[in-house]
Amino acid sequence: MIFRQLFESVSCTYSYLLASQRGGEALVIDPVLEKVDRYIQLLRELDLRLVKAVDTHLHADHITGLGALRDRTRCITVMGEQTRADIVSMRVSEGDRIEIEGLGLDVLYTPGHTDDSCCYVMADRVFTGDTLLIRGTGRTDFQNGSARDQYDSLFNKLLKLPEETLVYPAHDYKGDTVSTIGEEKGCNPRLQVRSVEEYVALMGRLNLSNPKMMDVAVPANMLLALSGSVGEW
Amino acid sequence: MIFRQLFESVSCTYSYLLASQRGGEALVIDPVLEKVDRYIQLLRELDLRLVKAVDTHLHADHITGLGALRDRTRCITVMGEQTRADIVSMRVSEGDRIEIEGLGLDVLYTPGHTDDSCCYVMADRVFTGDTLLIRGTGRTDFQNGSARDQYDSLFNKLLKLPEETLVYPAHDYKGDTVSTIGEEKGCNPRLQVRSVEEYVALMGRLNLSNPKMMDVAVPANMLLALSGSVGEW
Repeated sequence: MIFRQLFESVSCTYSYLLASQRGGEALVIDPVLEKVDRYIQLLRELDLRLVKAVDTHLHADHITGLGALRDRTRCITVMGEQTRADIVSMRVSEGDRIEIEGLGLDVLYTPGHTDDSCCYVMADRVFTGDTLLIRGTGRTDFQNGSARDQYDSLFNKLLKLPEETLVYPAHDYKGDTVSTIGEEKGCNPRLQVRSVEEYVALMGRLNLSNPKMMDVAVPANMLLALSGSVGEW
Repeated sequence: MIFRQLFESVSCTYSYLLASQRGGEALVIDPVLEKVDRYIQLLRELDLRLVKAVDTHLHADHITGLGALRDRTRCITVMGEQTRADIVSMRVSEGDRIEIEGLGLDVLYTPGHTDDSCCYVMADRVFTGDTLLIRGTGRTDFQNGSARDQYDSLFNKLLKLPEETLVYPAHDYKGDTVSTIGEEKGCNPRLQVRSVEEYVALMGRLNLSNPKMMDVAVPANMLLALSGSVGEW
């Protein structure tokens, strides 16, 4: 398997390139617009054909690369069925499987950070978007976020995965690249709560400022099919 | 196996934490002083005992965490036998094997970036320090660097490893995290030369400015055994 974790340093976003072998089909998760040239170059270098570009949710901190990748590679764009990005070509829901040659991602619907958040499970690993971060969880105070829903997504879905499952998030701000479900269960300070009420109270106390790019990124990402360039925003 | 790639964003350094299992012995490669608290926390969270801290070479762009890790964990500090960091507790040379419980690193002596540069080979992967970077190679214009030696280290040692060997460098400045020997052979612009003379000429044309921290980091790293804190420099 080809597996590449790629970092965008302005928004501290991790994107992922997956393929079963050189010369085969590829899939990208959470691509960032500014890095699309790099993804295209890497696809060419590894002799891969991009067939699907997938976002875990409508991002508020960067502009998605989905539109540009679709325009340049004719790949299918994939998001959860609840997304407000309304020209996505494939909408997935809990239990669906996103397939490319030799690989498949099982969809978990995990609202909380946003109401369109999904996580994608593949064999020994899970792509957790902003639902579960390394020693953190995604904020729940905008874009129809809900700490109550996120508690359910975390405790009744993600943390039910095998403890050795590798956790690959959409962001990390401190230099970590990967974790495991077991490690987050034991060491993630946000997960050491005894009830949904305690989690809701914890998230309610965070009092975060809005992401710098939010006013640009959210409307741009809703119209990802209409524009592949930052310049138009 | 536990394998963690950890990023330090100021000097864009990758450090690596290796262990065969939770509760066992661990080894760290190219630790950065400012991240030592994080390594110690992660070791505790994963129930690991650090027994060896290894540098690939005397770094000029950041202060090594070897001294602080030794002071805090009593681990053995390891570098190549040519290093000027003269109070390292274990000096290794070509063909040596650095072992911890369940894991071993085979030493390749790979001068060129510096005259003390080593790479460490473990099963399916190689830690290349600044000898081989993703789509680049380490500069050769200071610290007894030699483009001629680096050509030999690259073409007669690293590129002789199996093509599928994963390449984990000490730095990346563009968001890549891993590559392979085969990919670098084919796609690394510095490796598309036909002779040692061509490589020497290419490296001679780079004309790079010195790393910002060089005047601090090199003397600090030479005395790593005497000081574990930046404050003393």
